Amino acid sequence: MHIDRIDLITIRMPLSAPFTTSFSTQTERCPLLVRAVASEGGETVVGWGECVALAEPYYSPEYLEGARDVLQRFLVPALFEWQTSGRPVTAQTVSAAVAHVVGHRMAKAGLELAVLDAQLRLRHTSLAEHLGVTRDSVPAGVSVGIEDSVSALLDRVGGFIDQGYARIKLKIRPGWDVEPVRAVRERFGDLPLQVDANTAYRLSDVPTLRNLDPFELLLIEQPLAEDDLRQHAILAQQISTPVCLDESVISAQTAADAIALGAASVINIKPGRVGGYLEAVRIHDLALANGVAVWCGGMLETGIGRAANAALAGMPGFTLAGDISASDRFYRQDITEPITMTDGAVAVPRGPGIGVEPIPDALADSTIHSIELTA
Amino acid sequence: MHIDRIDLITIRMPLSAPFTTSFSTQTERCPLLVRAVASEGGETVVGWGECVALAEPYYSPEYLEGARDVLQRFLVPALFEWQTSGRPVTAQTVSAAVAHVVGHRMAKAGLELAVLDAQLRLRHTSLAEHLGVTRDSVPAGVSVGIEDSVSALLDRVGGFIDQGYARIKLKIRPGWDVEPVRAVRERFGDLPLQVDANTAYRLSDVPTLRNLDPFELLLIEQPLAEDDLRQHAILAQQISTPVCLDESVISAQTAADAIALGAASVINIKPGRVGGYLEAVRIHDLALANGVAVWCGGMLETGIGRAANAALAGMPGFTLAGDISASDRFYRQDITEPITMTDGAVAVPRGPGIGVEPIPDALADSTIHSIELTA
Amino acid sequence: MHIDRIDLITIRMPLSAPFTTSFSTQTERCPLLVRAVASEGGETVVGWGECVALAEPYYSPEYLEGARDVLQRFLVPALFEWQTSGRPVTAQTVSAAVAHVVGHRMAKAGLELAVLDAQLRLRHTSLAEHLGVTRDSVPAGVSVGIEDSVSALLDRVGGFIDQGYARIKLKIRPGWDVEPVRAVRERFGDLPLQVDANTAYRLSDVPTLRNLDPFELLLIEQPLAEDDLRQHAILAQQISTPVCLDESVISAQTAADAIALGAASVINIKPGRVGGYLEAVRIHDLALANGVAVWCGGMLETGIGRAANAALAGMPGFTLAGDISASDRFYRQDITEPITMTDGAVAVPRGPGIGVEPIPDALADSTIHSIELTA
Amino acid sequence: MHIDRIDLITIRMPLSAPFTTSFSTQTERCPLLVRAVASEGGETVVGWGECVALAEPYYSPEYLEGARDVLQRFLVPALFEWQTSGRPVTAQTVSAAVAHVVGHRMAKAGLELAVLDAQLRLRHTSLAEHLGVTRDSVPAGVSVGIEDSVSALLDRVGGFIDQGYARIKLKIRPGWDVEPVRAVRERFGDLPLQVDANTAYRLSDVPTLRNLDPFELLLIEQPLAEDDLRQHAILAQQISTPVCLDESVISAQTAADAIALGAASVINIKPGRVGGYLEAVRIHDLALANGVAVWCGGMLETGIGRAANAALAGMPGFTLAGDISASDRFYRQDITEPITMTDGAVAVPRGPGIGVEPIPDALADSTIHSIELTA
Repeated sequence: MHIDRIDLITIRMPLSAPFTTSFSTQTERCPLLVRAVASEGGETVVGWGECVALAEPYYSPEYLEGARDVLQRFLVPALFEWQTSGRPVTAQTVSAAVAHVVGHRMAKAGLELAVLDAQLRLRHTSLAEHLGVTRDSVPAGVSVGIEDSVSALLDRVGGFIDQGYARIKLKIRPGWDVEPVRAVRERFGDLPLQVDANTAYRLSDVPTLRNLDPFELLLIEQPLAEDDLRQHAILAQQISTPVCLDESVISAQTAADAIALGAASVINIKPGRVGGYLEAVRIHDLALANGVAVWCGGMLETGIGRAANAALAGMPGFTLAGDISASDRFYRQDITEPITMTDGAVAVPRGPGIGVEPIPDALADSTIHSIELTA
Repeated sequence: MHIDRIDLITIRMPLSAPFTTSFSTQTERCPLLVRAVASEGGETVVGWGECVALAEPYYSPEYLEGARDVLQRFLVPALFEWQTSGRPVTAQTVSAAVAHVVGHRMAKAGLELAVLDAQLRLRHTSLAEHLGVTRDSVPAGVSVGIEDSVSALLDRVGGFIDQGYARIKLKIRPGWDVEPVRAVRERFGDLPLQVDANTAYRLSDVPTLRNLDPFELLLIEQPLAEDDLRQHAILAQQISTPVCLDESVISAQTAADAIALGAASVINIKPGRVGGYLEAVRIHDLALANGVAVWCGGMLETGIGRAANAALAGMPGFTLAGDISASDRFYRQDITEPITMTDGAVAVPRGPGIGVEPIPDALADSTIHSIELTA
Repeated sequence: MHIDRIDLITIRMPLSAPFTTSFSTQTERCPLLVRAVASEGGETVVGWGECVALAEPYYSPEYLEGARDVLQRFLVPALFEWQTSGRPVTAQTVSAAVAHVVGHRMAKAGLELAVLDAQLRLRHTSLAEHLGVTRDSVPAGVSVGIEDSVSALLDRVGGFIDQGYARIKLKIRPGWDVEPVRAVRERFGDLPLQVDANTAYRLSDVPTLRNLDPFELLLIEQPLAEDDLRQHAILAQQISTPVCLDESVISAQTAADAIALGAASVINIKPGRVGGYLEAVRIHDLALANGVAVWCGGMLETGIGRAANAALAGMPGFTLAGDISASDRFYRQDITEPITMTDGAVAVPRGPGIGVEPIPDALADSTIHSIELTA
Repeated sequence: MHIDRIDLITIRMPLSAPFTTSFSTQTERCPLLVRAVASEGGETVVGWGECVALAEPYYSPEYLEGARDVLQRFLVPALFEWQTSGRPVTAQTVSAAVAHVVGHRMAKAGLELAVLDAQLRLRHTSLAEHLGVTRDSVPAGVSVGIEDSVSALLDRVGGFIDQGYARIKLKIRPGWDVEPVRAVRERFGDLPLQVDANTAYRLSDVPTLRNLDPFELLLIEQPLAEDDLRQHAILAQQISTPVCLDESVISAQTAADAIALGAASVINIKPGRVGGYLEAVRIHDLALANGVAVWCGGMLETGIGRAANAALAGMPGFTLAGDISASDRFYRQDITEPITMTDGAVAVPRGPGIGVEPIPDALADSTIHSIELTA
């Protein structure tokens, strides 16, 4: 396979409703798509990837323009140089080609996914098949942002339940934790429920977090700072809600550490956060080997990343419902054919590669910036 | 204190000789200076900071243009917004004002240092006095890059010994480790000697690293990947050379973890890497309280950062010589009055603030890019 | 800065009501004030400190006359000698100047605070600003002594609740523990409540202490002997009330040990007990880095120490309400303008230095002993 | 037994040669003697104790005048009050009578010894008999201060060896450690040798301390700060010289902790430091039960304390030679009949009580201060 060209396409998509976490409120989303033109044996295909960096470096150090700059300045040139030097270019070698760049995993993941998609299309193979997925669909969970009031929250959760979501996740932060959880439990009873703190607490908040124990949540996600596995391990011994890591797990290596230290009994796998789908698979394998549950998180992906996530989440270790909601959870109009939900589940795509691609008109309409890099 | 204006000034400085580590060879250095104009009670001063990000994201995720972009786009605006909202702006509040930005510690450190320098100048206090430093000078160690041959290395080390450096540090990587260390020990005997691996090894390299044991090195710096404290702890139990962390320690919190896990008996404190001089002090205090030695690393700083490091390294926990060499170790002409070495030591600056400032002509000659941000 | 003179001023202040702990009943308080006259650049200021030693060595080995003797005989002369030898005298160097004196931390703290106050006044900076405090006020907790009967206790607690205190702390001792706690919980419900044992229990009292578990106290303070971290660690594993240390933590080093051994999930920081406000900051930083909560204890301070405590307690790791009550909690007339409470909080002082000073007439009226030491 | 009167007698004794440790140089010694007049059944005896506090609070917080003040102001009145209230006064109850006073162990020990001596004299029993000692003599070790030069040290050590001392202890501090130890080993070969650091090192000095390993010392005494058992435990795992604690062990409780944490494989028992001979016996018993060796340290005692130490050191757990040298090691004229050494050993006194008492003329000549306290 030869990579002929890489385009970095920034698009703008309005959110159907504002989304508030412990660190920001978003009303639109500007995804960065990576388009790889690749050829082999006379055939040329286009592969698509999505860099999930948010607009601002508030969830992780990466952000839209920064990721684009690193791709343009370091990652894509490194891949081209790797190719020029005669080393084999496949999805499996992308991470080696860019290994000298520290961090910038979301940017790397977007690039790798584009190469992976192209490669699978050249081989007429779906991502699901490549991953050995046998399930037809995966349960869809939904992430509910911080609302203005408990009653607004209950309305929102009620709406999602009506839509059939298989699991509800509430974003929490100090001051918005025990009360909303109690209210949801009281109103909706024994539904699969979990919370996500996005690093908003400290170990010294144990007394507060312990107050969540009686609600028998599936898990609490990333309660403490991302760079502190040890404190999560101490916390895990003091609360009964299973501790799940998100931000802290940036590689198979940190996943191994988290497990060894007792810092996580569940891991949220986001391919962007860990540098790509191949590293995501390695973390899945490692967790499965250690008896640690995983599920697939979301970063408000377009159909591109959403389809790939639906394939990944079909792997056997994904025993918990992921944040793989339907496109219309976030977007009135997706950039691809929308991902839909049926009976609380999203179908595992079976077309070549990730199984979807941008609709040309939708892409053209929403593109706000484009860079073309030729090998 | 009111911050009136922040300038981001990029300069270019040729290195007196190429510098090779396990990840790159540098021939010039383009530091990013932060210039803060601050006023209080009718007096206006200029404070200087230095962002130590290298040209490329090979040592850490940060790099020159990325750091500049984050400063311009997020950090300086956040500080101005903090100020506009009426909250007190001092060096002590900078980290709170930018706390919502994840990572980007070198950029934050450059900003904080400029504010700190301005604040101390307004108060006619030196950084050394602010830190309670009572020493007049600090021992100067020198970092020796990877050379083309052992004989070239011996020449180079010999030259540094002749210049009077108090400690030699050799950069190592697989294939360039035991042999050069043995050669230096054989030629130069019992001098204070340590090695720096810049993450180039894996835990499975224990047999190789154990071969360094007989040379009674002061320490081996960052042998393994930055995101793996636990593996460093395992390594520390298998070799007798004390394990020192550099890249892995990015905050007082990670320092606390490293110490608790037994991953480090020594810490290299680089203020840029940890987000600023105030966090550097916190790590120093934490290490001192735990009996862990610290020393001050270097990032090829100009006189700005070099002077600040010389003050920091005067604190009582800095019991090992730092990489605080004279300016001419790297630059034929520094941007400030050059930092010099006498009897193997560098003087602790005692003028207001960091005690030095750019020489106007030298600054004008070397400036290649400038951004002016007004409050 | 030059210290021209240090005065040791002993004053007598009647308590508005007797205060009983597990070791004594006090009806008056004789604080020892430290007055430092300092000059720099033609300007002369007066700085104030307070040595919090009690009248008798029943809480710690220090007591009024002993502390005064050590100050007069060893500490002040050592500081003057340090100054005479040409070494820089600042608050940051006081601890080094007196480091050869073992123990006597309250005396040292009083001296350091006077120097710190003078230094900050010379630089027109408040202690709060120096510490980077951004809060405007800190929640005020109140410490309730051992009463003659449960009904007297309930009256007293009720009074404090009416005054608006944000948190209640009950002094306990064997025979006065479960019953009063139960009574307060039954009468006043879910208020923030904690207990302080002042070393009155032994590890063999676990069965009794376990009976406090159901009351969901914020913490139990110093249940066991001060010189036994290990037994506190064992205790912490057997009760669910978080264990907080007071007497045991006399330095950053012991704080580091307590945390490493699991002997404390909370630390009561009293600047006097740990040798001064700068060491208090180091313990705060250390605790924050380890996820351990801190709060600011009280020693029946006059407005001098009370104001300084209110600044300290504004630092970010102080996540629990301190014993920073209004002056009238203890004194009908304070020696400074009284510290007052509004809506359960005490304002962070923002004037130069500690922000308060003795009212000349009040000081003259209450002074019972004075020593003048000239440099 | 009734205590009729307690006298606090301060004497001045010139040292035969200056004695330098890591914290001070002494040329004279001003011991504080405690004289208890006690009666029972018509018989009246005088018991003698010695408070070992040094002139300055550089070894411990206690110092001559401070100890005297605490005895006069708190300890003796507490004992009299205990007696007045009808509770039995014996050596065994002194510690309970003064338990509410925190710290001040040397003062307490001096008081307790005087009561113990009186009590044993009333019962015509020797201290050795009371302790069940069966040995006739104990080996005498000698403590050698820091000398001006290695050659002066060698002369001094040679002199002590000629006198027949059974064991040599060298005081060390940074800069005076490996070299003098090597010199003594080279000159004098395989004699029983140990070193005493008096807290002068930090955990980060492991590399230096490891350099003592090859000299096969009996032990290194108190290398680190007194308030850090945990760091001693870490150190003990990194050097082969057995770690012995002195300053850190202030009670049976801290001894238990030190042993449990692995912080000490040897304990130096100084009765003054631990609050008296009865607590010393308890530490001995605890150590013996745990297989930890003990030996008896010295505080430049007069014959009073020296005789009592010789009795204590006869107990079976004292398997290492103590610092129980002859009187003439320090004093040209002792206050009692001099303690002498024969064949490297000091006789265990067998007379009533501690077996010695001050010679009236010598006492009168050297007394510089006296306080008489009547029950």
